[in-house]
Amino acid sequence: MAVDPDADERGSTETEIMEATYRALCKHGYSGLSISRIADEFEKSKSSLYYHYDSKDDLLVAFLTFAVDRFEASVATERSDDPMADLEGVIERLLPLRPTDEQRQIQALLVDLRSQAVTDERFRERFADIDERLVTTLTEVIERGIERGTFNEVDATRVAEHVLAVLNGAMVARATTDREAAVAAARVSLSSYLDTVLRR
Amino acid sequence: MAVDPDADERGSTETEIMEATYRALCKHGYSGLSISRIADEFEKSKSSLYYHYDSKDDLLVAFLTFAVDRFEASVATERSDDPMADLEGVIERLLPLRPTDEQRQIQALLVDLRSQAVTDERFRERFADIDERLVTTLTEVIERGIERGTFNEVDATRVAEHVLAVLNGAMVARATTDREAAVAAARVSLSSYLDTVLRR
Repeated sequence: MAVDPDADERGSTETEIMEATYRALCKHGYSGLSISRIADEFEKSKSSLYYHYDSKDDLLVAFLTFAVDRFEASVATERSDDPMADLEGVIERLLPLRPTDEQRQIQALLVDLRSQAVTDERFRERFADIDERLVTTLTEVIERGIERGTFNEVDATRVAEHVLAVLNGAMVARATTDREAAVAAARVSLSSYLDTVLRR
Repeated sequence: MAVDPDADERGSTETEIMEATYRALCKHGYSGLSISRIADEFEKSKSSLYYHYDSKDDLLVAFLTFAVDRFEASVATERSDDPMADLEGVIERLLPLRPTDEQRQIQALLVDLRSQAVTDERFRERFADIDERLVTTLTEVIERGIERGTFNEVDATRVAEHVLAVLNGAMVARATTDREAAVAAARVSLSSYLDTVLRR
């Protein structure tokens, strides 16, 4: 097997750049972010950061892919014998019922970044890809439940799109209003919907 | 009854300012909007516009209230003998299945404006009020169905919050991705959810 001796090194530099981007985003938000502020959070040679990325938007587009890759990887390891528990687990990770301050901040950041997609084609492609991958993850969990005979034979993609719409809508509500009870109501109603539609 | 002879005149000037704001928003979007561009769309004396509003954000905050007032007034006149048809009517108005270009533009504008609420307290209050009022409208339609014996005795507010989350999530998807089939899937799934949960 051919091994590229630099692959690990390159991979870890990119991960560190993404983690620096995340720290800078948490500190400064989208509007306060600049490539030099990301560089401030980066411990290795700053020139490698400037070498890879021309602008903060370049970095953020890469960051969104990195973040959804991580999310997918973490979800993939969480399969249990109970498809409904798995589904509720994915939902809780995407929209925690009692978010920590950091989770709340990430959600606000995502809502802020997503609004760039109204006018910016690159962000638009990224968020389409993110939604597509989240629907695929949710669909797979639902289809596993159908295969096991635990769930009804529903149109899994349609149910997944419904779940994602509730999650995105409630995430926007949380980030743009103080209607916290609304988020809880939507989550409770979503669970009872899934119970009614899926549980055999 | 005491009548303020200037009330109509004041009311119509304000309506015209709001309509000028709407036209300016459609032409320039949120980021391209300025108070002078709104003034360009205003046919009366520009000084009255500058007299009432200090900044474009002042005007937009007033505009959001104006828009939701209009929406509520139009929904209130649409009560039929069929609560499910009324509910579907409100949903179709908030998230048209086949939007015109203008409806699509309004939705993109709302998503763009709402993102200001992540960091701006005044926009945050406005969007909390808008969501609250939409939930009230939806709740009233559901409660009417319960009173008439057409709907099951559900927690009407909880169902209304679920509906609003789907609508807001799908509206964001439409404005920030090209996943048009996702919006259709969410709408179809929402209708079947309401049928399952509400219809006796």
